[in-house]
Amino acid sequence: MTRGRLQVVGVGPGDPELMTVRAVRLVQAAKVVAYFCRHDRPGHARTIARAHIAPDAEELRLEYPFTTEISVANPAYHGGMGQFYDECAHKLAQRLDKGQDVVLLCEGDPFLYGSAMYLFDRLKAGFETEVVPGIMAMNGCWTQAHLPITHGDDVLCVLPATLPEEKLTNWLEQADAAVIMKTGRNMPQVRRALEKAGRLEDAVYVERGTQENTRMCALQEQEDSVPYFSLVLLPGRKGVR
Amino acid sequence: MTRGRLQVVGVGPGDPELMTVRAVRLVQAAKVVAYFCRHDRPGHARTIARAHIAPDAEELRLEYPFTTEISVANPAYHGGMGQFYDECAHKLAQRLDKGQDVVLLCEGDPFLYGSAMYLFDRLKAGFETEVVPGIMAMNGCWTQAHLPITHGDDVLCVLPATLPEEKLTNWLEQADAAVIMKTGRNMPQVRRALEKAGRLEDAVYVERGTQENTRMCALQEQEDSVPYFSLVLLPGRKGVR
Repeated sequence: MTRGRLQVVGVGPGDPELMTVRAVRLVQAAKVVAYFCRHDRPGHARTIARAHIAPDAEELRLEYPFTTEISVANPAYHGGMGQFYDECAHKLAQRLDKGQDVVLLCEGDPFLYGSAMYLFDRLKAGFETEVVPGIMAMNGCWTQAHLPITHGDDVLCVLPATLPEEKLTNWLEQADAAVIMKTGRNMPQVRRALEKAGRLEDAVYVERGTQENTRMCALQEQEDSVPYFSLVLLPGRKGVR
Repeated sequence: MTRGRLQVVGVGPGDPELMTVRAVRLVQAAKVVAYFCRHDRPGHARTIARAHIAPDAEELRLEYPFTTEISVANPAYHGGMGQFYDECAHKLAQRLDKGQDVVLLCEGDPFLYGSAMYLFDRLKAGFETEVVPGIMAMNGCWTQAHLPITHGDDVLCVLPATLPEEKLTNWLEQADAAVIMKTGRNMPQVRRALEKAGRLEDAVYVERGTQENTRMCALQEQEDSVPYFSLVLLPGRKGVR
């Protein structure tokens, strides 16, 4: 019996119209659709792709055992998540072994900080895989904010806000352009790092980019309490004027 | 009379199926379609979007006065390109002033090193604008190469190969993950910088990613003579295993 194919499909930053033509085609044809979610939520990737999921498709909810309750700095985080990803991979492998194709939905692009990578890493040796790129949150945000991010030979650094504050400051001092991801509860240190690097006044805050109720403002005008779906843009400045 | 609207539309890295649903919709509805090209070529963005351009749409070819004949290091480059962008902006403004909407096609994402940014910069004050993000070449390449690029709190640096070799080396020493853009004639120095940074063996070369005749290999196995549409990927390594 032929084994199924794992299709890891990026569905973009939030606006369903920013899905690619290929993503739409694969989701529409899918008999099994898997996605990560909080136990009490529909799942962000699933919400984006919803209109294209066939009514009779089997949906595999991959419910995170925890989200913000355990910090990344806690050793229990990595053990807990590693075990969770093992279980998810097993669940997908059961369908793939039966010859069913599985579409794994991911918000943004599957290979930039996505949970899907951890399943891809576990399943790629055993099964045929296809990965469909998606518009990343940062692309959606900088186009929506009308902020060209890199001109000429600007260097762009993509920085997780979870880095130690000193490292973050150091990166911000060197980068021409930067995107700070995963701000959420790390906003106070993001603000301090930008200030120490002398870049605070150029930083733009974007919340729920390309989604309904997007909010954008100068970071200086934004309070420290921000949701998970938020990032900070620092445009570069080189090039032909 | 109402002025027209400038729609800057990213069409992705090469495979037409990686256009977004919105990009397809806007191109199909466009009465005026503009794009950059070499004087003797159809234009890469135009080739990607071709199937969706209406037969009766007006096409504005924005022909570069030079491409590789004058180096970026030559002062004449910036003057010449600045004047060219002024002329292109004027051409688009003529249509917009008459109340016509104009779709400006861009390969990849419009706001990452795109020529379109220079027209956007010149026209944004005078006209209503909309910018549609596109899948960037690097997304297309790292998914096609099956290379997850950032796990955990990996820092990703996007580096133009046109940087001075010493700077490039320094960035490659610090970055967890990196993408080197605009390789082309700069391959010899890209290779030396990777070697000095101790990262050569992890580097992957991708040529014409997501296009027909894509070529991928370890950078160590690639010769120095490479075309413009090529880049180098250096995946990061952190995160939950």
